[in-house]
Amino acid sequence: MKILSQINSPEDLRKIPLGTLPQLAQELREFIIDIVSTKEGHLGASLGVVELTIALHYIFDTPKDRLVWDVGHQAYGHKILTGRKELFDTNRQLGGISGFPKIDESEYDAFGTGHSSTSISAILGMALASKLKGETDRRHIAVIGDASIASGMAFEGLNHAGVTDVDMLIILNDNAIGIDPSVGALKKYLTNVKRGTAKDENIFECLNFDYSGPVDGNDLPNLISELKRLKARTGPKLLHIITTKGKGLQKAEENQVAYHAPGKFDKSTGEIHIKSVETEVPKYQDVFGHTLVELAKQNPKIVGITPAMPTGSSLKYMMEQIPDRAFDVGIAEQHAVTMAAGMAKEGTIPFCNIYSTFLQRAYDQVIHDVALQNLPVIFCLDRAGIVGEDGATHHGVFDLAYLRCIPNLIIFAPMNEMELRNIMYTAQLGLPNPIAIRYPRGQGTTLDWKRPFEEIAIGSSQELKKGSKIAILSLGTIGNRVGKVIDENDNNQQIGHYDMRFIKPLDTNRLEHIFQNYEYIITIEDACKAGGFGSAILELTNEMGYSNQIHMLGIDDAFLEHGTVDELHQLAEIDATSLRNLLNRIFDA
Amino acid sequence: MKILSQINSPEDLRKIPLGTLPQLAQELREFIIDIVSTKEGHLGASLGVVELTIALHYIFDTPKDRLVWDVGHQAYGHKILTGRKELFDTNRQLGGISGFPKIDESEYDAFGTGHSSTSISAILGMALASKLKGETDRRHIAVIGDASIASGMAFEGLNHAGVTDVDMLIILNDNAIGIDPSVGALKKYLTNVKRGTAKDENIFECLNFDYSGPVDGNDLPNLISELKRLKARTGPKLLHIITTKGKGLQKAEENQVAYHAPGKFDKSTGEIHIKSVETEVPKYQDVFGHTLVELAKQNPKIVGITPAMPTGSSLKYMMEQIPDRAFDVGIAEQHAVTMAAGMAKEGTIPFCNIYSTFLQRAYDQVIHDVALQNLPVIFCLDRAGIVGEDGATHHGVFDLAYLRCIPNLIIFAPMNEMELRNIMYTAQLGLPNPIAIRYPRGQGTTLDWKRPFEEIAIGSSQELKKGSKIAILSLGTIGNRVGKVIDENDNNQQIGHYDMRFIKPLDTNRLEHIFQNYEYIITIEDACKAGGFGSAILELTNEMGYSNQIHMLGIDDAFLEHGTVDELHQLAEIDATSLRNLLNRIFDA
Repeated sequence: MKILSQINSPEDLRKIPLGTLPQLAQELREFIIDIVSTKEGHLGASLGVVELTIALHYIFDTPKDRLVWDVGHQAYGHKILTGRKELFDTNRQLGGISGFPKIDESEYDAFGTGHSSTSISAILGMALASKLKGETDRRHIAVIGDASIASGMAFEGLNHAGVTDVDMLIILNDNAIGIDPSVGALKKYLTNVKRGTAKDENIFECLNFDYSGPVDGNDLPNLISELKRLKARTGPKLLHIITTKGKGLQKAEENQVAYHAPGKFDKSTGEIHIKSVETEVPKYQDVFGHTLVELAKQNPKIVGITPAMPTGSSLKYMMEQIPDRAFDVGIAEQHAVTMAAGMAKEGTIPFCNIYSTFLQRAYDQVIHDVALQNLPVIFCLDRAGIVGEDGATHHGVFDLAYLRCIPNLIIFAPMNEMELRNIMYTAQLGLPNPIAIRYPRGQGTTLDWKRPFEEIAIGSSQELKKGSKIAILSLGTIGNRVGKVIDENDNNQQIGHYDMRFIKPLDTNRLEHIFQNYEYIITIEDACKAGGFGSAILELTNEMGYSNQIHMLGIDDAFLEHGTVDELHQLAEIDATSLRNLLNRIFDA
Repeated sequence: MKILSQINSPEDLRKIPLGTLPQLAQELREFIIDIVSTKEGHLGASLGVVELTIALHYIFDTPKDRLVWDVGHQAYGHKILTGRKELFDTNRQLGGISGFPKIDESEYDAFGTGHSSTSISAILGMALASKLKGETDRRHIAVIGDASIASGMAFEGLNHAGVTDVDMLIILNDNAIGIDPSVGALKKYLTNVKRGTAKDENIFECLNFDYSGPVDGNDLPNLISELKRLKARTGPKLLHIITTKGKGLQKAEENQVAYHAPGKFDKSTGEIHIKSVETEVPKYQDVFGHTLVELAKQNPKIVGITPAMPTGSSLKYMMEQIPDRAFDVGIAEQHAVTMAAGMAKEGTIPFCNIYSTFLQRAYDQVIHDVALQNLPVIFCLDRAGIVGEDGATHHGVFDLAYLRCIPNLIIFAPMNEMELRNIMYTAQLGLPNPIAIRYPRGQGTTLDWKRPFEEIAIGSSQELKKGSKIAILSLGTIGNRVGKVIDENDNNQQIGHYDMRFIKPLDTNRLEHIFQNYEYIITIEDACKAGGFGSAILELTNEMGYSNQIHMLGIDDAFLEHGTVDELHQLAEIDATSLRNLLNRIFDA
């Protein structure tokens, strides 16, 4: 690491001779592999843009020039070159640096990212502001992948930028893959461009961009000269570069999906360390994926939809086994939801799997196209609640609040694998309403989860334990924690526990019984308190004229950063200790 | 109306000879003008597609063939030809037919619309479902305007559709205008296509569509033969037609913005009937528009942004007077919000004006790009609350619930013109947080509203009247109604009234005082109750350990249809009578 060790900022970088840059690229790549192999994180994307990262900071005058990394999975090299080399081994850890660009972390992070396709709008806003301020020497660059640029929001940015005269450069980093392989007509078109079989006018030229490329984005000298040339040109420009995701680690190049975020691996061979436990207790994702295949084999009306997350959501199992009924629509949550509505209108039964945080992208479509028309789309909201190391951009903690206000929508959170299976079974029998099923990232609790299906009555809760003084109402998998805390409590005979399952419709009969029979009520949820599950219970208490004191455990009104799920649950005070302390306070009072 | 009177369904239409269709077009146009001139509604869009409407139902086998009208402003002719001719004079009235396509209303309305750019996703979902069901003879057609197709969601639909082999036809109805003139690079490109100056490969061909056109969409015989030709072709097709918005009514052709929805007008001359009252008490829109100009002239950091609503929002005043700092970005709410975030990051002060119902389209961007980064974007949410005749697709009633859960965001609702002015003034002085300011469609209450600016302390409420027994907490303009009801009440000395203004942060000091000093609390809001303003008050009561009974007046958990604002307020029981009755019930108890 002879050269990298001397570089603590892009200023240092710009002092070294052009000829040594390929050596620096090699060292930067090794540095990333070194750390990610033991500390985990996103690997492939950053390896693919090592040359681009160096070239951008070499040619442009960052941080004065603004540089936005779309999504931000690929920004590790950027972080390392911009003063965070020594901190890089704290990546994604509690109190450490974020896995994504973050404006609070460095002046080199011109705009925070995490969700895809925001970079064009952000950089255009910055460029327009710059122009209004009369700044003539500030450049504006966005780096966006071919999967992200196909998302609607990116098109909106292009459509506006193309009629401005601001100085901005969009670098289309075309590696033909997002997290999973890219899909769609634009991807096909870009393939034709690369093959030279596209006809005359380029699609970006149609949108009034000064298009150049495609160029080899892993060829540093070539990239440097191209960026130099573009730096001298004004107006909106788009440079199309071709890179290889995972570049420089053979296994990562060969299996780009697995090495997007491979977990721990052997840095010399690339071999991924398999966690043995994963073979036993299933991830909720796999419960979803396998159950969907099982149901779809019996029910020909079922279709599956994912916006670009076949692997993450485990919809890939259905895509492999029943390909004509499983759809990866690309990073297109809005389209996914309204397409599902169209399918439901025609009598098919769509399971539309979207990460909770990404459903925020299709909020209007859920209201306007699904719920208003009362079309029975089955939303499976993966990675609901606190997601851990991905941090603030990715926690799925707002869903209960933003969905609860939507008429016609059923909202369910399974406490365990069987409840997830059974609600999926129930939903495909035919519901009069759309339903949102939220479940967390990661592993469940049950070895023998593949039990026979049982129908769940809509709006029904479960009494898991009777009590007398305190009723704990839990929603979702956090209920498993509640059971353990109660077991350990000295006064456990006085504590009741209810798995509410449905936040909408609420089990009002059961709740009225609880309001009458318990003095104290505790609600616990892996979601924001404002407007969430506890709030719904409170509204019902008030409406029914009861005045039980409700102790709400949930996430306070602040964004949570990254860390392990356990650490973040502690910080949010929805962990076992917080519940234990609350119980003791009530008993001591 | 010799021919139209014989047509009660597309079946009737398909029986008449081709040669009489132009006469039918003439009659249909007159019928629309006749009714809209007295009953009000959307005029220009439907006049422009009279020929297309006839041609589609003539050539295709509706309702078996599925036809989706994007946005739906242009579907009046469709409604008249599909069995709703006799009902058409109830258009947009309470209990009457909707101003938009609606699946509950007619089997010819294959998919409900209202918000733009959903039609491609919807028709693709239907076409895929049809294919899975093995239906080989069902056609799928979406009609979408050039303003709508430039929105990101439409691009997502095109991007997916282009790699399918379903039989679908997209008709791009290019009239170069949405509600206001179209903008953006795609519009510019389409202009080049029409002029024949675009180069070889068409942008839609790049996306793998079988493109044809442009053809004159007001030329019926031409259109008929083109649709016939396309009916015989398989796969995803796009027909580009050129029409004139307002076609057939000279004034409507000449002033397409004013005649989008002109209100009442003289059907022979086209002259719009001016409501004299509008010259005196301002619309909230104009308070926003004029105040923004006033502030922007003093503060060079201010910029204005609208996604395609310069006229509706009155941002047009700033666009006229300070054009380099006011941006119409087209139907691109997502882009508008993130661009505003980019601008705020660079120290400008963006006023981003979006209708409440359309902010649903940019929900993720509000969370992920604005609030998470705590960038002080100033959202002005126009048409918040119940909007009246536009109905279920357009009511802005979810905003309080979906925004309240977002950390860092300030949420304010002015009770009157002065509060709107003063919060705009306060916001541009520089806030540490983003703010959402929600206000309704329509007129205010104050003649001399242009008073000197006063700063509003963030989180402060106003005590409008002291009381002793009942405190009414109101949010926004609905507070004006409260004052009147209190004045009329026999026990009015016992009733206090508080204009809370901020739903976030709440004025906790004031509220604690209220919880201590009043037995009964009534909350009233022009928004859904679940998770809304009353719910926020309830959460605070509970958190502070008070157990006052809260009577929540707000919108129940159901979609409200169309009607006048007053009628819908009565239905929702947030009108004066409902409040009066509630007060009497409390006093009688």
